[in-house]
Amino acid sequence: MRMVETIESVRRAVQSASKPLGLVPTMGYLHEGHLSLIRTARAECDAVVVSIFVNPTQFGPGEDFERYPRDLNRDLSLCEREGVDVVFTPNAREMYPQGFRTYVDVTELQDRWEGASRPGHFRGVATVVTKLFRIVQPQRAYFGEKDYQQLKLVQRMAADLVLDVEVIGCPIIREPDGLAMSSRNVYLDDESRRRAAALFAALADAQRDLACGVRSAARLCTDMRAALDRVGGIAIDYVAVVDPESLEPVDVVANEARALIAAWVGGVRLIDNAPLVPPA
Amino acid sequence: MRMVETIESVRRAVQSASKPLGLVPTMGYLHEGHLSLIRTARAECDAVVVSIFVNPTQFGPGEDFERYPRDLNRDLSLCEREGVDVVFTPNAREMYPQGFRTYVDVTELQDRWEGASRPGHFRGVATVVTKLFRIVQPQRAYFGEKDYQQLKLVQRMAADLVLDVEVIGCPIIREPDGLAMSSRNVYLDDESRRRAAALFAALADAQRDLACGVRSAARLCTDMRAALDRVGGIAIDYVAVVDPESLEPVDVVANEARALIAAWVGGVRLIDNAPLVPPA
Repeated sequence: MRMVETIESVRRAVQSASKPLGLVPTMGYLHEGHLSLIRTARAECDAVVVSIFVNPTQFGPGEDFERYPRDLNRDLSLCEREGVDVVFTPNAREMYPQGFRTYVDVTELQDRWEGASRPGHFRGVATVVTKLFRIVQPQRAYFGEKDYQQLKLVQRMAADLVLDVEVIGCPIIREPDGLAMSSRNVYLDDESRRRAAALFAALADAQRDLACGVRSAARLCTDMRAALDRVGGIAIDYVAVVDPESLEPVDVVANEARALIAAWVGGVRLIDNAPLVPPA
Repeated sequence: MRMVETIESVRRAVQSASKPLGLVPTMGYLHEGHLSLIRTARAECDAVVVSIFVNPTQFGPGEDFERYPRDLNRDLSLCEREGVDVVFTPNAREMYPQGFRTYVDVTELQDRWEGASRPGHFRGVATVVTKLFRIVQPQRAYFGEKDYQQLKLVQRMAADLVLDVEVIGCPIIREPDGLAMSSRNVYLDDESRRRAAALFAALADAQRDLACGVRSAARLCTDMRAALDRVGGIAIDYVAVVDPESLEPVDVVANEARALIAAWVGGVRLIDNAPLVPPA
Protein backbone atom coordinates (compact mmCIF):
# COMPACT_ATOMS: atom_id res chain seq x y z
CA MET A 1 0.00 0.00 0.00
CA ARG A 2 1.28 3.44 -0.92
CA MET A 3 0.68 6.49 1.22
CA VAL A 4 0.88 9.80 -0.61
CA GLU A 5 0.24 13.38 0.46
CA THR A 6 0.55 15.47 -2.69
CA ILE A 7 -1.60 15.78 -5.79
CA GLU A 8 1.42 15.10 -7.96
CA SER A 9 2.35 11.92 -6.13
CA VAL A 10 -1.16 10.46 -6.09
CA ARG A 11 -1.49 11.15 -9.80
CA ARG A 12 1.80 9.38 -10.42
CA ALA A 13 0.63 6.46 -8.27
CA VAL A 14 -2.69 6.02 -10.09
CA GLN A 15 -1.22 6.45 -13.57
CA SER A 16 0.41 3.03 -13.36
CA ALA A 17 -2.52 1.41 -11.49
CA SER A 18 -4.75 -1.14 -13.19
CA LYS A 19 -8.19 0.05 -14.29
CA PRO A 20 -11.01 0.30 -13.41
CA LEU A 21 -9.87 2.42 -10.53
CA GLY A 22 -12.19 2.89 -7.54
CA LEU A 23 -12.10 5.90 -5.22
CA VAL A 24 -13.48 5.95 -1.68
CA PRO A 25 -13.42 9.56 -0.45
CA THR A 26 -13.47 9.78 3.36
CA MET A 27 -12.76 12.17 6.21
CA GLY A 28 -10.98 9.35 8.06
CA TYR A 29 -11.76 7.87 11.48
CA LEU A 30 -12.90 4.86 9.52
CA HIS A 31 -15.74 2.63 10.73
CA GLU A 32 -17.55 -0.39 9.32
CA GLY A 33 -19.50 1.90 6.98
CA HIS A 34 -16.30 3.05 5.31
CA LEU A 35 -14.93 -0.48 5.28
CA SER A 36 -18.01 -1.70 3.44
CA LEU A 37 -17.37 0.96 0.77
CA ILE A 38 -13.75 -0.13 0.51
CA ARG A 39 -14.75 -3.79 0.23
CA THR A 40 -17.26 -3.02 -2.51
CA ALA A 41 -14.62 -1.00 -4.37
CA ARG A 42 -12.12 -3.82 -3.86
CA ALA A 43 -14.58 -6.34 -5.31
CA GLU A 44 -15.54 -4.18 -8.32
CA CYS A 45 -12.25 -2.49 -9.25
CA ASP A 46 -8.70 -3.46 -10.14
CA ALA A 47 -7.21 -0.80 -7.89
CA VAL A 48 -8.60 1.14 -4.93
CA VAL A 49 -7.67 4.61 -3.71
CA VAL A 50 -8.92 5.87 -0.33
CA SER A 51 -8.66 9.58 0.34
CA ILE A 52 -8.57 10.80 3.93
CA PHE A 53 -9.14 14.52 4.19
CA VAL A 54 -11.11 16.40 6.82
CA ASN A 55 -12.31 19.04 4.38
CA PRO A 56 -12.49 22.45 6.04
CA THR A 57 -14.77 24.00 3.38
CA GLN A 58 -17.67 21.70 4.24
CA PHE A 59 -17.74 22.74 7.91
CA GLY A 60 -19.57 25.91 8.88
CA PRO A 61 -18.46 28.38 11.55
CA GLY A 62 -19.18 26.85 14.96
CA GLU A 63 -19.27 23.31 13.58
CA ASP A 64 -16.93 20.55 14.69
CA PHE A 65 -14.03 20.89 12.22
CA GLU A 66 -11.43 21.31 14.96
CA ARG A 67 -12.64 18.45 17.13
CA TYR A 68 -13.70 16.11 14.30
CA PRO A 69 -12.21 12.74 15.35
CA ARG A 70 -8.93 11.78 13.70
CA ASP A 71 -6.77 8.63 13.99
CA LEU A 72 -4.57 8.33 10.94
CA ASN A 73 -2.49 5.39 12.12
CA ARG A 74 -5.55 3.29 12.80
CA ASP A 75 -7.06 4.34 9.44
CA LEU A 76 -3.90 3.29 7.62
CA SER A 77 -3.87 -0.14 9.31
CA LEU A 78 -7.49 -0.67 8.34
CA CYS A 79 -6.81 0.33 4.73
CA GLU A 80 -3.79 -1.95 4.60
CA ARG A 81 -5.84 -4.84 5.93
CA GLU A 82 -8.58 -4.20 3.31
CA GLY A 83 -6.08 -4.34 0.47
CA VAL A 84 -6.24 -0.66 -0.47
CA ASP A 85 -3.63 0.25 -3.10
CA VAL A 86 -3.16 3.95 -2.42
CA VAL A 87 -4.12 6.17 0.53
CA PHE A 88 -4.17 9.88 -0.31
CA THR A 89 -3.87 12.18 2.71
CA PRO A 90 -3.47 15.74 1.45
CA ASN A 91 -3.38 18.70 3.79
CA ALA A 92 -5.58 21.77 3.36
CA ARG A 93 -2.83 23.76 1.65
CA GLU A 94 -2.45 21.06 -0.98
CA MET A 95 -6.16 21.06 -1.77
CA TYR A 96 -6.73 24.80 -1.35
CA PRO A 97 -3.51 26.59 -2.24
CA GLN A 98 -3.05 30.34 -1.85
CA GLY A 99 -5.42 32.17 -4.20
CA PHE A 100 -7.86 29.26 -4.55
CA ARG A 101 -11.33 30.63 -5.30
CA THR A 102 -13.32 28.21 -7.46
CA TYR A 103 -16.36 26.44 -6.01
CA VAL A 104 -18.96 24.06 -7.37
CA ASP A 105 -22.62 24.68 -6.54
CA VAL A 106 -25.41 22.17 -7.08
CA THR A 107 -28.29 24.62 -6.96
CA GLU A 108 -31.59 23.73 -5.25
CA LEU A 109 -30.29 20.31 -4.19
CA GLN A 110 -27.65 21.99 -2.01
CA ASP A 111 -30.14 24.30 -0.29
CA ARG A 112 -32.58 21.72 1.11
CA TRP A 113 -32.44 19.68 4.35
CA GLU A 114 -28.77 19.36 5.35
CA GLY A 115 -28.02 22.40 3.21
CA ALA A 116 -30.61 24.52 5.00
CA SER A 117 -29.23 23.48 8.40
CA ARG A 118 -25.60 23.73 7.32
CA PRO A 119 -25.19 26.68 4.90
CA GLY A 120 -22.17 26.23 2.65
CA HIS A 121 -21.79 22.56 3.57
CA PHE A 122 -22.63 21.14 0.14
CA ARG A 123 -20.63 23.77 -1.72
CA GLY A 124 -17.66 22.45 0.24
CA VAL A 125 -18.58 18.85 -0.52
CA ALA A 126 -19.18 19.45 -4.24
CA THR A 127 -15.92 21.35 -4.58
CA VAL A 128 -13.70 18.85 -2.79
CA VAL A 129 -15.29 15.88 -4.56
CA THR A 130 -14.83 17.55 -7.95
CA LYS A 131 -11.17 18.09 -7.09
CA LEU A 132 -10.72 14.52 -5.85
CA PHE A 133 -12.37 13.14 -9.00
CA ARG A 134 -10.10 15.27 -11.19
CA ILE A 135 -6.97 14.41 -9.22
CA VAL A 136 -7.50 10.65 -8.95
CA GLN A 137 -9.60 10.18 -12.13
CA PRO A 138 -11.35 7.04 -10.92
CA GLN A 139 -13.84 5.16 -13.08
CA ARG A 140 -16.00 4.57 -10.00
CA ALA A 141 -16.47 6.30 -6.67
CA TYR A 142 -18.23 4.92 -3.60
CA PHE A 143 -20.39 6.89 -1.19
CA GLY A 144 -22.51 5.70 1.70
CA GLU A 145 -26.28 6.09 1.59
CA LYS A 146 -26.10 7.38 5.17
CA ASP A 147 -25.34 10.78 3.65
CA TYR A 148 -28.15 10.32 1.18
CA GLN A 149 -28.43 13.94 0.06
CA GLN A 150 -24.67 14.06 -0.47
CA LEU A 151 -24.87 10.94 -2.63
CA LYS A 152 -27.62 12.41 -4.81
CA LEU A 153 -25.84 15.74 -5.07
CA VAL A 154 -22.56 14.12 -6.12
CA GLN A 155 -24.34 11.97 -8.70
CA ARG A 156 -26.05 15.04 -10.16
CA MET A 157 -22.79 16.99 -10.20
CA ALA A 158 -20.80 14.19 -11.84
CA ALA A 159 -23.38 13.98 -14.63
CA ASP A 160 -23.77 17.76 -15.07
CA LEU A 161 -20.04 18.47 -15.25
CA VAL A 162 -19.24 15.35 -17.32
CA LEU A 163 -16.79 14.13 -14.68
CA ASP A 164 -16.76 10.59 -16.14
CA VAL A 165 -17.12 8.87 -12.79
CA GLU A 166 -19.80 6.36 -11.90
CA VAL A 167 -20.96 7.41 -8.45
CA ILE A 168 -22.13 4.35 -6.54
CA GLY A 169 -24.25 4.47 -3.39
CA CYS A 170 -23.72 1.71 -0.83
CA PRO A 171 -26.16 0.59 1.90
CA ILE A 172 -26.02 2.09 5.37
CA ILE A 173 -24.13 -0.04 7.88
CA ARG A 174 -25.81 -0.08 11.31
CA GLU A 175 -25.00 -0.96 14.89
CA PRO A 176 -26.98 -3.92 16.35
CA ASP A 177 -29.65 -1.52 17.68
CA GLY A 178 -30.02 0.15 14.29
CA LEU A 179 -27.95 3.32 14.81
CA ALA A 180 -26.30 4.24 11.50
CA MET A 181 -22.52 4.07 11.73
CA SER A 182 -20.93 7.52 11.78
CA SER A 183 -17.59 8.92 12.89
CA ARG A 184 -19.59 11.39 14.97
CA ASN A 185 -21.18 8.62 17.08
CA VAL A 186 -18.06 8.78 19.22
CA TYR A 187 -19.38 12.10 20.58
CA LEU A 188 -22.44 10.37 22.16
CA ASP A 189 -22.48 9.73 25.92
CA ASP A 190 -24.07 6.48 27.15
CA GLU A 191 -27.55 7.88 27.66
CA SER A 192 -27.56 9.65 24.26
CA ARG A 193 -26.15 6.56 22.60
CA ARG A 194 -29.18 4.56 23.82
CA ARG A 195 -31.60 7.26 22.68
CA ALA A 196 -29.92 7.57 19.26
CA ALA A 197 -31.38 4.24 18.16
CA ALA A 198 -34.73 6.03 17.95
CA LEU A 199 -33.85 7.50 14.54
CA PHE A 200 -33.71 4.08 12.95
CA ALA A 201 -36.77 2.95 14.91
CA ALA A 202 -38.73 5.95 13.58
CA LEU A 203 -37.69 5.15 10.01
CA ALA A 204 -38.70 1.53 10.53
CA ASP A 205 -42.09 2.75 11.84
CA ALA A 206 -42.60 4.72 8.63
CA GLN A 207 -41.76 1.66 6.55
CA ARG A 208 -44.20 -0.43 8.57
CA ASP A 209 -46.93 2.25 8.24
CA LEU A 210 -46.39 2.23 4.50
CA ALA A 211 -46.64 -1.56 4.37
CA CYS A 212 -49.97 -1.20 6.20
CA GLY A 213 -51.30 1.15 3.53
CA VAL A 214 -50.44 4.63 4.85
CA ARG A 215 -49.47 6.74 1.83
CA SER A 216 -49.77 10.27 3.23
CA ALA A 217 -46.34 11.86 3.72
CA ALA A 218 -47.79 14.13 6.43
CA ARG A 219 -49.07 11.13 8.36
CA LEU A 220 -45.75 9.29 7.97
CA CYS A 221 -43.88 12.36 9.23
CA THR A 222 -46.23 12.73 12.19
CA ASP A 223 -45.64 9.11 13.12
CA MET A 224 -41.87 9.45 12.82
CA ARG A 225 -41.91 12.60 14.97
CA ALA A 226 -44.04 10.83 17.57
CA ALA A 227 -41.61 7.91 17.65
CA LEU A 228 -38.70 10.29 18.27
CA ASP A 229 -40.61 12.31 20.89
CA ARG A 230 -41.57 9.18 22.84
CA VAL A 231 -37.89 8.48 23.56
CA GLY A 232 -37.25 11.95 24.97
CA GLY A 233 -34.05 14.02 24.84
CA ILE A 234 -34.19 14.28 21.06
CA ALA A 235 -34.46 17.68 19.34
CA ILE A 236 -35.72 17.15 15.81
CA ASP A 237 -34.09 19.27 13.09
CA TYR A 238 -36.20 17.88 10.25
CA VAL A 239 -38.28 14.85 9.38
CA ALA A 240 -39.26 14.56 5.73
CA VAL A 241 -40.57 12.25 3.03
CA VAL A 242 -39.03 13.20 -0.29
CA ASP A 243 -38.56 12.28 -3.93
CA PRO A 244 -35.49 10.01 -4.00
CA GLU A 245 -33.72 12.00 -6.76
CA SER A 246 -34.76 15.66 -6.44
CA LEU A 247 -35.23 15.44 -2.65
CA GLU A 248 -38.32 17.60 -2.96
CA PRO A 249 -41.05 16.77 -0.43
CA VAL A 250 -43.81 14.52 -1.73
CA ASP A 251 -47.43 14.61 -0.54
CA VAL A 252 -48.23 11.00 -1.20
CA VAL A 253 -45.91 8.00 -1.47
CA ALA A 254 -47.10 6.77 -4.86
CA ASN A 255 -43.66 5.66 -6.08
CA GLU A 256 -40.46 4.99 -4.19
CA ALA A 257 -39.65 7.84 -1.82
CA ARG A 258 -37.05 8.45 0.88
CA ALA A 259 -37.60 9.23 4.55
CA LEU A 260 -35.04 11.62 6.04
CA ILE A 261 -34.36 12.46 9.68
CA ALA A 262 -31.94 14.91 11.27
CA ALA A 263 -31.96 15.36 15.03
CA TRP A 264 -29.83 16.46 17.97
CA VAL A 265 -29.29 13.81 20.61
CA GLY A 266 -27.38 14.93 23.69
CA GLY A 267 -25.75 17.79 21.78
CA VAL A 268 -24.76 15.58 18.85
CA ARG A 269 -26.35 16.08 15.44
CA LEU A 270 -27.29 12.78 13.79
CA ILE A 271 -28.83 12.02 10.40
CA ASP A 272 -30.41 8.88 9.00
CA ASN A 273 -32.68 7.87 6.13
CA ALA A 274 -34.46 4.91 4.61
CA PRO A 275 -36.21 3.96 1.38
CA LEU A 276 -40.01 4.02 1.36
CA VAL A 277 -41.17 1.53 -1.23
CA PRO A 278 -44.96 1.29 -1.47
CA PRO A 279 -46.29 -2.28 -1.64
CA ALA A 280 -47.20 -3.42 -5.16
CA MET B 1 -13.55 18.56 -41.16
CA ARG B 2 -16.18 16.87 -39.00
CA MET B 3 -19.25 18.67 -37.74
CA VAL B 4 -20.83 17.17 -34.62
CA GLU B 5 -23.72 18.25 -32.44
CA THR B 6 -23.77 15.82 -29.53
CA ILE B 7 -21.44 15.29 -26.59
CA GLU B 8 -21.17 11.63 -27.46
CA SER B 9 -20.18 12.29 -31.07
CA VAL B 10 -17.59 14.94 -30.27
CA ARG B 11 -16.04 12.63 -27.67
CA ARG B 12 -15.87 9.87 -30.25
CA ALA B 13 -14.32 12.27 -32.75
CA VAL B 14 -11.58 13.49 -30.39
CA GLN B 15 -10.77 10.05 -29.02
CA SER B 16 -9.09 9.09 -32.28
CA ALA B 17 -7.57 12.56 -32.88
CA SER B 18 -3.83 13.14 -32.57
CA LYS B 19 -2.63 14.88 -29.43
CA PRO B 20 -1.98 17.54 -28.26
CA LEU B 21 -5.54 18.60 -28.92
CA GLY B 22 -6.39 22.30 -28.97
CA LEU B 23 -9.84 23.72 -28.19
CA VAL B 24 -11.08 27.12 -29.29
CA PRO B 25 -14.40 27.80 -27.51
CA THR B 26 -16.50 30.41 -29.35
CA MET B 27 -20.03 31.74 -29.58
CA GLY B 28 -19.70 31.78 -33.36
CA TYR B 29 -20.05 34.72 -35.78
CA LEU B 30 -16.32 34.32 -36.22
CA HIS B 31 -14.04 37.29 -36.91
CA GLU B 32 -10.29 37.77 -37.28
CA GLY B 33 -9.91 37.53 -33.50
CA HIS B 34 -11.32 34.02 -33.48
CA LEU B 35 -9.31 33.11 -36.57
CA SER B 36 -6.10 34.16 -34.85
CA LEU B 37 -6.97 31.80 -31.96
CA ILE B 38 -7.63 28.99 -34.43
CA ARG B 39 -4.35 29.66 -36.27
CA THR B 40 -2.40 29.62 -33.01
CA ALA B 41 -4.10 26.36 -32.02
CA ARG B 42 -3.41 24.97 -35.50
CA ALA B 43 0.29 25.86 -35.18
CA GLU B 44 0.68 24.47 -31.65
CA CYS B 45 -1.55 21.37 -31.69
CA ASP B 46 -1.94 18.19 -33.72
CA ALA B 47 -5.71 18.53 -33.85
CA VAL B 48 -8.04 21.49 -33.38
CA VAL B 49 -11.63 21.54 -32.13
CA VAL B 50 -13.74 24.69 -32.41
CA SER B 51 -16.92 24.84 -30.38
CA ILE B 52 -19.71 27.16 -31.49
CA PHE B 53 -22.32 27.64 -28.80
CA VAL B 54 -24.19 30.79 -27.88
CA ASN B 55 -24.33 29.94 -24.21
CA PRO B 56 -27.62 31.09 -22.67
CA THR B 57 -26.38 30.91 -19.06
CA GLN B 58 -23.84 33.69 -19.56
CA PHE B 59 -26.46 36.20 -20.74
CA GLY B 60 -28.47 38.11 -18.16
CA PRO B 61 -32.15 39.00 -18.43
CA GLY B 62 -32.48 41.88 -20.90
CA GLU B 63 -29.14 41.13 -22.52
CA ASP B 64 -28.72 40.25 -26.18
CA PHE B 65 -28.98 36.45 -26.15
CA GLU B 66 -31.85 36.39 -28.65
CA ARG B 67 -30.32 38.85 -31.11
CA TYR B 68 -26.70 37.77 -30.66
CA PRO B 69 -25.42 37.50 -34.27
CA ARG B 70 -25.31 34.00 -35.75
CA ASP B 71 -24.10 32.72 -39.14
CA LEU B 72 -23.28 29.04 -38.86
CA ASN B 73 -22.65 28.43 -42.57
CA ARG B 74 -20.10 31.21 -42.77
CA ASP B 75 -18.48 29.99 -39.52
CA LEU B 76 -18.17 26.48 -40.90
CA SER B 77 -16.54 27.71 -44.15
CA LEU B 78 -14.03 29.73 -42.14
CA CYS B 79 -13.22 26.75 -39.90
CA GLU B 80 -12.82 24.52 -42.95
CA ARG B 81 -10.46 27.02 -44.55
CA GLU B 82 -8.38 27.23 -41.35
CA GLY B 83 -7.92 23.47 -41.22
CA VAL B 84 -10.06 22.83 -38.15
CA ASP B 85 -10.54 19.12 -37.49
CA VAL B 86 -13.81 19.11 -35.58
CA VAL B 87 -16.54 21.73 -35.13
CA PHE B 88 -18.79 21.09 -32.15
CA THR B 89 -22.17 22.84 -32.33
CA PRO B 90 -24.32 21.58 -29.46
CA ASN B 91 -27.73 23.00 -28.73
CA ALA B 92 -28.80 24.23 -25.30
CA ARG B 93 -30.61 20.98 -24.44
CA GLU B 94 -27.43 19.01 -25.10
CA MET B 95 -25.37 21.20 -22.76
CA TYR B 96 -28.08 21.77 -20.16
CA PRO B 97 -30.37 18.74 -20.14
CA GLN B 98 -33.52 18.55 -18.03
CA GLY B 99 -32.59 18.64 -14.34
CA PHE B 100 -29.20 20.30 -14.88
CA ARG B 101 -28.29 22.30 -11.78
CA THR B 102 -24.52 22.37 -11.25
CA TYR B 103 -22.62 25.63 -11.64
CA VAL B 104 -19.02 26.70 -11.21
CA ASP B 105 -18.27 29.93 -9.34
CA VAL B 106 -14.92 31.69 -9.32
CA THR B 107 -15.51 33.81 -6.25
CA GLU B 108 -14.26 37.42 -6.06
CA LEU B 109 -12.88 37.29 -9.60
CA GLN B 110 -16.41 36.78 -10.95
CA ASP B 111 -17.87 39.72 -9.01
CA ARG B 112 -15.63 42.52 -10.24
CA TRP B 113 -15.88 44.70 -13.40
CA GLU B 114 -17.78 42.68 -16.02
CA GLY B 115 -19.23 40.57 -13.23
CA ALA B 116 -20.57 43.63 -11.40
CA SER B 117 -22.17 44.96 -14.59
CA ARG B 118 -23.40 41.55 -15.71
CA PRO B 119 -24.52 39.51 -12.66
CA GLY B 120 -24.35 35.78 -13.32
CA HIS B 121 -22.30 36.24 -16.49
CA PHE B 122 -19.13 34.59 -15.23
CA ARG B 123 -20.98 31.76 -13.49
CA GLY B 124 -22.34 30.95 -16.95
CA VAL B 125 -18.90 31.24 -18.53
CA ALA B 126 -17.15 29.13 -15.87
CA THR B 127 -19.81 26.44 -16.08
CA VAL B 128 -19.88 26.12 -19.85
CA VAL B 129 -16.09 26.19 -20.12
CA THR B 130 -15.76 23.49 -17.45
CA LYS B 131 -18.22 21.37 -19.40
CA LEU B 132 -16.44 21.99 -22.73
CA PHE B 133 -13.10 21.11 -21.14
CA ARG B 134 -14.52 17.90 -19.72
CA ILE B 135 -16.30 16.96 -22.95
CA VAL B 136 -13.42 17.66 -25.37
CA GLN B 137 -10.54 17.05 -22.94
CA PRO B 138 -8.07 19.26 -24.81
CA GLN B 139 -4.47 19.68 -23.69
CA ARG B 140 -4.68 23.39 -24.57
CA ALA B 141 -7.45 25.93 -24.90
CA TYR B 142 -7.23 29.34 -26.54
CA PHE B 143 -8.97 32.50 -25.36
CA GLY B 144 -8.65 36.07 -26.60
CA GLU B 145 -7.22 38.74 -24.33
CA LYS B 146 -10.09 40.99 -25.44
CA ASP B 147 -12.13 39.30 -22.72
CA TYR B 148 -9.28 39.70 -20.28
CA GLN B 149 -11.24 39.03 -17.10
CA GLN B 150 -12.72 35.90 -18.67
CA LEU B 151 -9.22 34.69 -19.56
CA LYS B 152 -7.96 35.18 -16.00
CA LEU B 153 -11.05 33.59 -14.51
CA VAL B 154 -10.77 30.52 -16.76
CA GLN B 155 -7.07 30.15 -15.94
CA ARG B 156 -7.83 30.31 -12.21
CA MET B 157 -10.69 27.83 -12.55
CA ALA B 158 -8.66 25.36 -14.61
CA ALA B 159 -5.94 25.36 -11.96
CA ASP B 160 -8.32 25.23 -8.97
CA LEU B 161 -10.38 22.33 -10.32
CA VAL B 162 -7.36 20.46 -11.76
CA LEU B 163 -8.92 20.48 -15.22
CA ASP B 164 -5.58 19.59 -16.87
CA VAL B 165 -5.89 22.18 -19.62
CA GLU B 166 -3.31 24.83 -20.42
CA VAL B 167 -5.35 27.99 -20.91
CA ILE B 168 -3.57 30.23 -23.39
CA GLY B 169 -4.34 33.92 -23.86
CA CYS B 170 -3.87 35.37 -27.36
CA PRO B 171 -3.39 39.04 -28.29
CA ILE B 172 -6.34 41.24 -29.18
CA ILE B 173 -6.90 41.63 -32.92
CA ARG B 174 -7.90 45.18 -33.86
CA GLU B 175 -9.46 47.04 -36.75
CA PRO B 176 -7.15 49.57 -38.51
CA ASP B 177 -8.42 52.37 -36.19
CA GLY B 178 -7.74 50.29 -33.11
CA LEU B 179 -11.25 49.00 -32.29
CA ALA B 180 -10.94 45.52 -30.77
CA MET B 181 -12.61 42.90 -32.97
CA SER B 182 -15.88 41.66 -31.47
CA SER B 183 -18.95 39.92 -32.81
CA ARG B 184 -20.97 42.71 -31.20
CA ASN B 185 -19.30 45.40 -33.36
CA VAL B 186 -21.92 44.55 -35.99
CA TYR B 187 -24.46 46.33 -33.76
CA LEU B 188 -22.65 49.70 -34.19
CA ASP B 189 -24.10 52.29 -36.56
CA ASP B 190 -21.64 54.40 -38.60
CA GLU B 191 -21.41 57.26 -36.12
CA SER B 192 -20.94 54.91 -33.14
CA ARG B 193 -18.45 52.85 -35.09
CA ARG B 194 -16.27 55.97 -35.53
CA ARG B 195 -16.60 56.88 -31.86
CA ALA B 196 -15.80 53.33 -30.73
CA ALA B 197 -12.14 53.76 -31.66
CA ALA B 198 -11.89 56.02 -28.60
CA LEU B 199 -11.58 53.01 -26.28
CA PHE B 200 -8.31 51.96 -27.85
CA ALA B 201 -7.14 55.56 -28.07
CA ALA B 202 -7.79 56.01 -24.33
CA LEU B 203 -5.82 52.85 -23.52
CA ALA B 204 -2.98 54.07 -25.74
CA ASP B 205 -3.05 57.40 -23.87
CA ALA B 206 -2.61 55.54 -20.59
CA GLN B 207 0.32 53.61 -22.01
CA ARG B 208 1.91 56.84 -23.23
CA ASP B 209 1.31 58.54 -19.85
CA LEU B 210 3.01 55.61 -18.16
CA ALA B 211 5.97 55.82 -20.53
CA CYS B 212 6.24 59.50 -19.55
CA GLY B 213 6.48 58.61 -15.87
CA VAL B 214 2.87 58.76 -14.65
CA ARG B 215 2.45 55.94 -12.12
CA SER B 216 -0.72 56.99 -10.31
CA ALA B 217 -3.66 54.75 -11.23
CA ALA B 218 -6.09 57.56 -10.36
CA ARG B 219 -4.31 59.90 -12.75
CA LEU B 220 -4.23 57.27 -15.51
CA CYS B 221 -7.95 56.63 -15.06
CA THR B 222 -8.71 60.36 -15.15
CA ASP B 223 -6.80 60.69 -18.40
CA MET B 224 -8.58 57.69 -19.95
CA ARG B 225 -11.96 59.07 -18.91
CA ALA B 226 -11.07 62.45 -20.38
CA ALA B 227 -10.04 60.82 -23.66
CA LEU B 228 -13.40 59.01 -23.85
CA ASP B 229 -15.40 62.11 -22.87
CA ARG B 230 -13.68 64.25 -25.51
CA VAL B 231 -15.15 62.06 -28.26
CA GLY B 232 -18.73 62.42 -26.99
CA GLY B 233 -21.59 59.93 -27.15
CA ILE B 234 -19.77 57.45 -24.91
CA ALA B 235 -21.27 56.37 -21.57
CA ILE B 236 -18.49 54.93 -19.43
CA ASP B 237 -19.36 51.84 -17.40
CA TYR B 238 -15.94 51.52 -15.77
CA VAL B 239 -12.34 52.55 -16.30
CA ALA B 240 -9.80 50.81 -14.09
CA VAL B 241 -6.14 50.03 -13.57
CA VAL B 242 -5.81 46.61 -11.98
CA ASP B 243 -3.47 43.85 -10.94
CA PRO B 244 -3.10 41.60 -14.02
CA GLU B 245 -3.94 38.39 -12.12
CA SER B 246 -6.31 39.25 -9.28
CA LEU B 247 -7.92 42.17 -11.18
CA GLU B 248 -7.96 44.15 -7.95
CA PRO B 249 -7.45 47.88 -8.45
CA VAL B 250 -3.92 49.11 -7.88
CA ASP B 251 -3.00 52.56 -6.58
CA VAL B 252 0.35 52.84 -8.27
CA VAL B 253 1.67 51.04 -11.36
CA ALA B 254 4.83 49.67 -9.80
CA ASN B 255 4.76 46.36 -11.69
CA GLU B 256 2.87 45.31 -14.77
CA ALA B 257 -0.82 46.21 -14.49
CA ARG B 258 -3.80 46.11 -16.83
CA ALA B 259 -6.02 48.97 -17.94
CA LEU B 260 -9.68 48.02 -18.42
CA ILE B 261 -12.49 49.95 -20.09
CA ALA B 262 -16.17 49.17 -20.52
CA ALA B 263 -18.45 51.71 -22.16
CA TRP B 264 -21.70 52.09 -24.05
CA VAL B 265 -21.35 53.58 -27.52
CA GLY B 266 -24.62 54.23 -29.34
CA GLY B 267 -26.45 51.64 -27.24
CA VAL B 268 -23.74 48.98 -27.71
CA ARG B 269 -21.65 47.83 -24.77
CA LEU B 270 -17.96 47.52 -25.66
CA ILE B 271 -14.96 46.39 -23.61
CA ASP B 272 -11.25 46.71 -24.20
CA ASN B 273 -8.02 46.45 -22.23
CA ALA B 274 -4.28 46.84 -22.52
CA PRO B 275 -1.16 45.98 -20.56
CA LEU B 276 0.50 48.75 -18.57
CA VAL B 277 4.19 47.93 -18.31
CA PRO B 278 6.15 50.56 -16.39
CA PRO B 279 9.45 51.52 -18.04
CA ALA B 280 12.51 49.85 -16.51
